[in-house]
Amino acid sequence: MWNGYVNNADRALLKVIKYSSPTSAGAECIDPDCSWVEQWVHRAGPRKEIYFEPEEVKAAIVTCGGLCPGLNDVIRQIVFTLETYGVKNIVGIPFGYRGFFEKGLKEMPLSRCLVENINLNGGSFLGVSRGGAKTSEIVDSIQARRIDMLFVLGGNGTHAGANAIHEECRKRKLKVSVVAVPKTIDNDILLMDKTFGFDTAVEEAQRAINSAYIEARSAYHGIGLVKLMGRSSGFIAMHASLSSGQVNVCLIPEVPFTLDGEFGVLRHLEHLLKTKGFCVVCVAEAAGQDLLQKSGATDASGNVIFSDIGVHMQQKIKMHFKDIGVPADVKYIDPTYMVRACRANASDAILCTVLGQNAVHGAFAGFSGITSCICNTHYVYLPITEVIKAPKRVNPNSRMWHRCLTSTGQPDFH
Amino acid sequence: MWNGYVNNADRALLKVIKYSSPTSAGAECIDPDCSWVEQWVHRAGPRKEIYFEPEEVKAAIVTCGGLCPGLNDVIRQIVFTLETYGVKNIVGIPFGYRGFFEKGLKEMPLSRCLVENINLNGGSFLGVSRGGAKTSEIVDSIQARRIDMLFVLGGNGTHAGANAIHEECRKRKLKVSVVAVPKTIDNDILLMDKTFGFDTAVEEAQRAINSAYIEARSAYHGIGLVKLMGRSSGFIAMHASLSSGQVNVCLIPEVPFTLDGEFGVLRHLEHLLKTKGFCVVCVAEAAGQDLLQKSGATDASGNVIFSDIGVHMQQKIKMHFKDIGVPADVKYIDPTYMVRACRANASDAILCTVLGQNAVHGAFAGFSGITSCICNTHYVYLPITEVIKAPKRVNPNSRMWHRCLTSTGQPDFH
Amino acid sequence: MWNGYVNNADRALLKVIKYSSPTSAGAECIDPDCSWVEQWVHRAGPRKEIYFEPEEVKAAIVTCGGLCPGLNDVIRQIVFTLETYGVKNIVGIPFGYRGFFEKGLKEMPLSRCLVENINLNGGSFLGVSRGGAKTSEIVDSIQARRIDMLFVLGGNGTHAGANAIHEECRKRKLKVSVVAVPKTIDNDILLMDKTFGFDTAVEEAQRAINSAYIEARSAYHGIGLVKLMGRSSGFIAMHASLSSGQVNVCLIPEVPFTLDGEFGVLRHLEHLLKTKGFCVVCVAEAAGQDLLQKSGATDASGNVIFSDIGVHMQQKIKMHFKDIGVPADVKYIDPTYMVRACRANASDAILCTVLGQNAVHGAFAGFSGITSCICNTHYVYLPITEVIKAPKRVNPNSRMWHRCLTSTGQPDFH
Amino acid sequence: MWNGYVNNADRALLKVIKYSSPTSAGAECIDPDCSWVEQWVHRAGPRKEIYFEPEEVKAAIVTCGGLCPGLNDVIRQIVFTLETYGVKNIVGIPFGYRGFFEKGLKEMPLSRCLVENINLNGGSFLGVSRGGAKTSEIVDSIQARRIDMLFVLGGNGTHAGANAIHEECRKRKLKVSVVAVPKTIDNDILLMDKTFGFDTAVEEAQRAINSAYIEARSAYHGIGLVKLMGRSSGFIAMHASLSSGQVNVCLIPEVPFTLDGEFGVLRHLEHLLKTKGFCVVCVAEAAGQDLLQKSGATDASGNVIFSDIGVHMQQKIKMHFKDIGVPADVKYIDPTYMVRACRANASDAILCTVLGQNAVHGAFAGFSGITSCICNTHYVYLPITEVIKAPKRVNPNSRMWHRCLTSTGQPDFH
Repeated sequence: MWNGYVNNADRALLKVIKYSSPTSAGAECIDPDCSWVEQWVHRAGPRKEIYFEPEEVKAAIVTCGGLCPGLNDVIRQIVFTLETYGVKNIVGIPFGYRGFFEKGLKEMPLSRCLVENINLNGGSFLGVSRGGAKTSEIVDSIQARRIDMLFVLGGNGTHAGANAIHEECRKRKLKVSVVAVPKTIDNDILLMDKTFGFDTAVEEAQRAINSAYIEARSAYHGIGLVKLMGRSSGFIAMHASLSSGQVNVCLIPEVPFTLDGEFGVLRHLEHLLKTKGFCVVCVAEAAGQDLLQKSGATDASGNVIFSDIGVHMQQKIKMHFKDIGVPADVKYIDPTYMVRACRANASDAILCTVLGQNAVHGAFAGFSGITSCICNTHYVYLPITEVIKAPKRVNPNSRMWHRCLTSTGQPDFH
Repeated sequence: MWNGYVNNADRALLKVIKYSSPTSAGAECIDPDCSWVEQWVHRAGPRKEIYFEPEEVKAAIVTCGGLCPGLNDVIRQIVFTLETYGVKNIVGIPFGYRGFFEKGLKEMPLSRCLVENINLNGGSFLGVSRGGAKTSEIVDSIQARRIDMLFVLGGNGTHAGANAIHEECRKRKLKVSVVAVPKTIDNDILLMDKTFGFDTAVEEAQRAINSAYIEARSAYHGIGLVKLMGRSSGFIAMHASLSSGQVNVCLIPEVPFTLDGEFGVLRHLEHLLKTKGFCVVCVAEAAGQDLLQKSGATDASGNVIFSDIGVHMQQKIKMHFKDIGVPADVKYIDPTYMVRACRANASDAILCTVLGQNAVHGAFAGFSGITSCICNTHYVYLPITEVIKAPKRVNPNSRMWHRCLTSTGQPDFH
Repeated sequence: MWNGYVNNADRALLKVIKYSSPTSAGAECIDPDCSWVEQWVHRAGPRKEIYFEPEEVKAAIVTCGGLCPGLNDVIRQIVFTLETYGVKNIVGIPFGYRGFFEKGLKEMPLSRCLVENINLNGGSFLGVSRGGAKTSEIVDSIQARRIDMLFVLGGNGTHAGANAIHEECRKRKLKVSVVAVPKTIDNDILLMDKTFGFDTAVEEAQRAINSAYIEARSAYHGIGLVKLMGRSSGFIAMHASLSSGQVNVCLIPEVPFTLDGEFGVLRHLEHLLKTKGFCVVCVAEAAGQDLLQKSGATDASGNVIFSDIGVHMQQKIKMHFKDIGVPADVKYIDPTYMVRACRANASDAILCTVLGQNAVHGAFAGFSGITSCICNTHYVYLPITEVIKAPKRVNPNSRMWHRCLTSTGQPDFH
Repeated sequence: MWNGYVNNADRALLKVIKYSSPTSAGAECIDPDCSWVEQWVHRAGPRKEIYFEPEEVKAAIVTCGGLCPGLNDVIRQIVFTLETYGVKNIVGIPFGYRGFFEKGLKEMPLSRCLVENINLNGGSFLGVSRGGAKTSEIVDSIQARRIDMLFVLGGNGTHAGANAIHEECRKRKLKVSVVAVPKTIDNDILLMDKTFGFDTAVEEAQRAINSAYIEARSAYHGIGLVKLMGRSSGFIAMHASLSSGQVNVCLIPEVPFTLDGEFGVLRHLEHLLKTKGFCVVCVAEAAGQDLLQKSGATDASGNVIFSDIGVHMQQKIKMHFKDIGVPADVKYIDPTYMVRACRANASDAILCTVLGQNAVHGAFAGFSGITSCICNTHYVYLPITEVIKAPKRVNPNSRMWHRCLTSTGQPDFH
């Protein structure tokens, strides 16, 4: 059936820029200490020899965390590819890790017929949820259900969980292949070009920015303010600002800023109203957290719940212009759910297709504790441990951030 | 040039349902006291004889209130039609009535070339704002600027203002034609089939509902909550609920409801989570104001500023399910600006084209104090005084509301 | 359950314009011979007394002819409403009338669960086809299947078929209710405001026009040519030209034109290239058939197969400009399938919802041989015989066609 | 102003896969003879030292060939970046190379204000055309106009022209910097990850496929046939087939096929109709040219004009099923202009932004005869001579083509 096999010894190169001096390194430099280090990683794809007997395999899929465009594309493609190998027993675990232990939640038998058109709609066909149980309980459940392959779709936290499951399985000498597919709309996982759903999210986020732009330009001294996702990174805010070309101020968590004072954002907004008559501000959800009172709360996944920088800025801007007696018409847009609860665009659909196929190839090749991703335009497998060392963040010295600054024309805010 | 003249004595019929008994009357019955009354109104369109000498006319356009899809289409078409008549002197008054008196705001000369493509983007090319000056000051300004025709785009309040201007002009014996085009995304003006932008707003609102539906269905005990516009009426909420077919509870200001108690909304949500596993709620911004503390504040147009029913319900729902120990994952979407700051769809584009053309025909026919609208699928002129007697509201006994109830399957909430 | 009953004696008015003289009558005048005639028709909606015992009813749905946006919305709503009445036995007849007799095609059991989300995609869930069998064979099949209610979605031809079925059932004294819902993307059925799918088609057609406009404007002496549907009428071409505002020449079957000669279309295109540098032409598929060689062929529904006016014009234009030595870059777009194979927009979704509900109400009220439609913004039942007397066509003297001419600025082409 | 300088000695790596054996090499292997060769190319971006005095520079932009989404984004960004450097004299050459010599075509002065919103619409603000004059005449014109920087947007042919201009300028010792930006919707230029507009084209092409799918599935024995662009390569067809997941047969020029015979496409369609009931075929415009009669004609750019494989297949399929007496309902879609005359999506908008900025940086760095592109996710400059050696084509042994085959499930057609 397969005739495009990947040889197990094939490698893709991880780092491809050779800086003539360390000072010229930008965002693309993952390791800032060296000018360039060669490093090869496993190429993804089907292997000639497979580790499992397809007819005897029970495969399970679980989707964790928040929604992200493309989840259904990946689920669909994993099912298709498993069936192509000849796997008969495929199930979905409902509502994330919760589905492993919560009573009343039953695993869903999956087949090509059932998932044929799920990619036409957003969301997760299996349901998602945050948080979960202890690793040991999940592995108990895996053991009880006699699962041989577990496909886990989720972000940094979910990957850590998947790796813990993988290690617990090893400890118990279970022959379970645990393969992850990185799912984070924030694009904040190390070492990979991008994660699925990010492209679609930027497209939709740009629509919100365009609305803010239209509101701002049509109002007398209009100020459009858009808050975009980004739990620890400003990728969506940066890319949507760049793609729209309509943003005057882009604020991300990686670059500190002040609102007040001579070099603060508010003073710059005054300047923009005076010179342009209106302006558009795009702020990432995790930006400027030092300006807010800490709530200290966390969600079920253990993520810190942020105080709302968007609402805070809206209030500060209104107060400021009231104080200085200048009219300002502030319109605030938080498009979060509309950005993430939508169907994957064509580019993400292809990415999801390949990542899903490769996840299955990886499991059949006998890998476990890996994640299926794209590096330097090539599809590879990375050890989960490598990608969860820290969230990926925008490098403030990178060319891409400089391009964003050039596009907005904003000064340093401190 | 024109060969499709309308005769000044042509009439369109205002009411077209003949109820066999008063009890069967629904939303379509404007006057609930009678079973049916015949009433004819002026048909809109070009007249053979025109009242103004085109070459000597100075025409002005002003857009007031909030944004609405189609504003640019109407502006563009008024300019086109004026030029077709031969008018050379066309200006835009910037930022609503404010543009008549605020220093530093200059009238904008308009031409076909300038407005050719403004319909491709949302917003108002002229800018909008709320509130304004005294009528006498505006008429002073009209007099000083030697304006002969004033085209006013706005909602109920703006129409009242336009009529006051019209009457003040009569009192001063100024030959000024004041013609309005109803602009309210809420569709809340009496006697007309619909106002421009409403169709587009329903389309976009439905997108937000779809996002809420996807979020709700993909979450464990997910509740999607969408707040839609409607300052005094629930038309957008009702139509978007109907068109999406994904709403389980639709709440509008015309129909009172309680949240708590045996027949309250919260109890029904419990029921939906138990039986369906998720649900979607759509609430109009003015709904349930009796449940909120009055702020008493008004905006610059004199509209009451509502306490936010969306945020209130979000909090109440979260608290309720916490109290009863049932997990519930509430996702709240307020798509207001994304619904209104967008381009008109094809249907609205045609409506805007005709309303704009007819506004100019009406002015050249010598009418003043009228509004250009569509009644029973026919384009007519109505006296402003007739349409501003009260805001149009959803009739809770109408077939359309009953269709909505059938679609949602919701009970009475009291 | 239902509390918004319609009284059987309620009526809606069919004609609502009162012309002061016959000469001012436009497209809205259905009967050109009279200045105005009052005529009342049955108001649609649920009746207090129903004719069938829901639990014993077998209801069937069939979709005939070509695709049209909204087919799935109507199917879905018929199923929902039947279930609300308590009907258990609902089936779909696959692939039009063909499904009644072709071996191997089985009727599909339908339920709320099955059709819940079919409205999210275009096409027909049941499948469509043209043509069919003899009426007597279809009624044999209806009798054999013990069908009590037959819901037929289709155009003029299909309506004629439905009426023949209705009459044959009467003749055989079968208590079968045959209710049609007009389905014609061309909007060419008499007496109704519009048919479902038309609005969506205009929206999509406008996209094609916009592409043609961009191609034309970006090319040196660019000519964009778009062919739009309209088997016997130019409604889509006229409305899409109006809504886009980007068309310079709109050609419809109701208005004859010549290509050659001093007053022909080609000469006008020369003029446009000289003055504007580019132009856009929109032609309805049935326009200018007198200019083509008759093929005489018909499709399976008995519709005449047209020679392709789009391709013909493309060739004529290219030849003409080659002959006169003027460069011209012709881009031809035929977006037919992309216009009709798409999901209904919000406005059509509501129309479909109401028409579908009313079809079921009509059947339960005991009507047969009727069609469910909208007249003067009110939902009514019309006898099929009334609506199929002739296809509805654009009235060249109507205000709407004059608005289109004003928008394009085109002269008479003869 | 700039603080994110690129050092002139920075390099990006061109090839990043290390194949363990030559046999496992796929599409990603540019040079099939070797297992892996290291090769470094110039990193794009602003340099600390610039070669031109901005205030004295006259810069010109020209767009050649057919339309492609994103042209206006690149034009806009080149103007923005030139102004950021301080360039005052920026002009657009209208309608491709033709604008250099055709009388009556005047260069257009460009500024930030003028191009601010051109990215919101598709097409080329400057106009495009194919073909041109002799290189020497163009350079005469460049000399006469005193142009210092020429930015050329176009495909393989245009790049060859740009390089000839660059060499003629060197010969005449003119200090002119000629910088290209690859513009080919087909994505068929060597060495780069992708060209701008390709992503958007795949998105739109997928819409056409979805229409074909809906038409096919809703018809009795429906066959949807879509022809997509690809003058010498099947990238759009392959990617749109993959992203839609709705294609059963994908035909590209790189992979020969037969229609007739035991292993031909037609026999496979028979099989699909029998087993699935419908099918969707996607064919690239240059596919199967060996099956057609050669026309031998070329367009103004010297490109071979293809006989139309789409129309040919439509006829062959119809005839075949008529011959074998099996009903088949063929729907043919050619979405070419709708795919290319549209606005760039967010991903392409960012690509265009960076390529445009880098083109200007490259000119100021003193480069000439280069093209601005993206390699292995990094932005680089490549010598034009390197990228025009041959058109890039789909490698039939690549993983991506195998993924496509897996997705369609099609056999070898010969």
